Amino acid sequence: MTNNIFSPGLTEYVGVAAGHTIGMVIANPDPAVRMLLEIPDKYPSIAILTSRVGAAAQAFAIDEAAKSAQADLLRFELPRDTEGYSGHGNLFVLGCPDISDARRLVELALARIDENAERIYINEVGHMEMHYTAHAGVILHQLFDAPLQRGFGFICAGPAGISIVAADAAMKAAPVEVCWYGTASYRLSMTNEVIVGITGDYSAVKKAVDTAYQTASTLMETFGSKPESILYFNG
Amino acid sequence: MTNNIFSPGLTEYVGVAAGHTIGMVIANPDPAVRMLLEIPDKYPSIAILTSRVGAAAQAFAIDEAAKSAQADLLRFELPRDTEGYSGHGNLFVLGCPDISDARRLVELALARIDENAERIYINEVGHMEMHYTAHAGVILHQLFDAPLQRGFGFICAGPAGISIVAADAAMKAAPVEVCWYGTASYRLSMTNEVIVGITGDYSAVKKAVDTAYQTASTLMETFGSKPESILYFNG
Amino acid sequence: MTNNIFSPGLTEYVGVAAGHTIGMVIANPDPAVRMLLEIPDKYPSIAILTSRVGAAAQAFAIDEAAKSAQADLLRFELPRDTEGYSGHGNLFVLGCPDISDARRLVELALARIDENAERIYINEVGHMEMHYTAHAGVILHQLFDAPLQRGFGFICAGPAGISIVAADAAMKAAPVEVCWYGTASYRLSMTNEVIVGITGDYSAVKKAVDTAYQTASTLMETFGSKPESILYFNG
Repeated sequence: MTNNIFSPGLTEYVGVAAGHTIGMVIANPDPAVRMLLEIPDKYPSIAILTSRVGAAAQAFAIDEAAKSAQADLLRFELPRDTEGYSGHGNLFVLGCPDISDARRLVELALARIDENAERIYINEVGHMEMHYTAHAGVILHQLFDAPLQRGFGFICAGPAGISIVAADAAMKAAPVEVCWYGTASYRLSMTNEVIVGITGDYSAVKKAVDTAYQTASTLMETFGSKPESILYFNG
Repeated sequence: MTNNIFSPGLTEYVGVAAGHTIGMVIANPDPAVRMLLEIPDKYPSIAILTSRVGAAAQAFAIDEAAKSAQADLLRFELPRDTEGYSGHGNLFVLGCPDISDARRLVELALARIDENAERIYINEVGHMEMHYTAHAGVILHQLFDAPLQRGFGFICAGPAGISIVAADAAMKAAPVEVCWYGTASYRLSMTNEVIVGITGDYSAVKKAVDTAYQTASTLMETFGSKPESILYFNG
Repeated sequence: MTNNIFSPGLTEYVGVAAGHTIGMVIANPDPAVRMLLEIPDKYPSIAILTSRVGAAAQAFAIDEAAKSAQADLLRFELPRDTEGYSGHGNLFVLGCPDISDARRLVELALARIDENAERIYINEVGHMEMHYTAHAGVILHQLFDAPLQRGFGFICAGPAGISIVAADAAMKAAPVEVCWYGTASYRLSMTNEVIVGITGDYSAVKKAVDTAYQTASTLMETFGSKPESILYFNG
């Protein structure tokens, strides 16, 4: 699931990354596409990142990328996907001042997705995403109400109930606050997950997410093998 | 998919059951978890059951368990899941007066889920759940408007159209009434199913559900082998 | 995934077709089924087509069939399905003046679905449906706002972002107009797709859809092999 060599000879194509993510750009979207995606005229170019597996790995990566490349998030979709698992895929559309910004945004994000995807774990039955950052940027703020420039953590596991027990352990382990959450029918897309976004000092956020990871991993192991990163899983 | 021996050494873990179900308890949920799940203070402890496969097998099991253990259903989610099939998974959160009630509820439910899952059938393409009880309890009443203490039957198959023909045959076979139904976009979670809940005298309900089973099974067989219980299927 | 020989001995069964489609009829739906599906009394019989894979292949087929058999579309559902892929399944319920019309509608549609499914393509990761017709009929008009008797094209690919780039290329390739579109959370069922319906002169529609096909196919190939029809794919 890492970048491959294949280049399709389309100017729109930038690259692929883990989680079956593909990154693309459009220099001048057709007026009809601009209208249906509601892209304001002030963005001549758009960047597109879309994956079958994962939501937060990509969101955290784009958040980092947007610190170095000029891009505003215009559209975010969380389809029900994760291929055989019970979570999300994603679609991000970002508006950029020119095509080189769009391309740079996508390149930076793809590289980072390959790193972040190490923290998407699966086993025979369950999946989880456990991420944290010391400094949430504008994208994480926009998507998950993460306070800007503070520590932000993302706790997510499926089947859904495992995530509740993991989040409970996390909240008890460190002084963090919940800033966002979703369940199948609340904010999520009928996925078999619970997602909890937490904020606080970086060390507290890290400790909380690590506790959530340990708890969810232990519970998932009752269904099969110890969960491993999607980068290495051979189920 | 039956209970395994593995014990993860977490006090929250109770056990696993068919349908990739895991049962857990939390003695004193963290205030943040309590708030985000909207758990009233009068419940010191919670029971959690969550599965990737099945909805009714678990609902019927919890309904029975709640006749012997004190527990109120606080939250029910029907995510789009069933792993490779086109139905639901589930998440149940129940409030309990103390942790021993919570644990007992989960233990009783898990044992019953292993029995009920015999009536979740699959073949290469389709799935169905066909359940009935002589005496619907409070959980089935709460979830599916089943009249209390009366016979209640659950008819569900996917792809969705098969369930319509099965329900039609069921209604013609015995004097029962529809008390609940759902389709992909109505009450369900974009699953490829139709669900019909029926009520009546036990013998009529049983005859209707058996007819639905025969009809759906016969129709599903046009796609492959005769559907078998998920407990035994080796498709 | 083509019609098989097996006949289940149920009068309701008509046949199966590609995309794990099954076609059925009910001569006189039970009053309860009639009520829950909201079938007006003026339709004594109903036709049912339901699939795990595909939406447009079936919609285009039923649109053609309804030109030769009397049938009104009463219900259309787009569940999240496509088995391992990130698109839709479907459920169509049509009202007919008698059972022979219902049966004829289903027979015509099934034969056509086997043809149309050639234009559902998959590879290891992605899927797409690319269809066009010279003369949209009442069903395509009802479902996708296709102007009657004009050329209509259907562009759909997943993961979702690929479809945006494909639609952009299509709109730039030929003078067509968008008459319908959907994304995961807008009109679709949390599928990882974008769907764009276009209208115009037949030659323009065909050129636009062929361009979308080439673009999406090229982008999908970065994830694995060249996409092939579900009729032939052996991924």
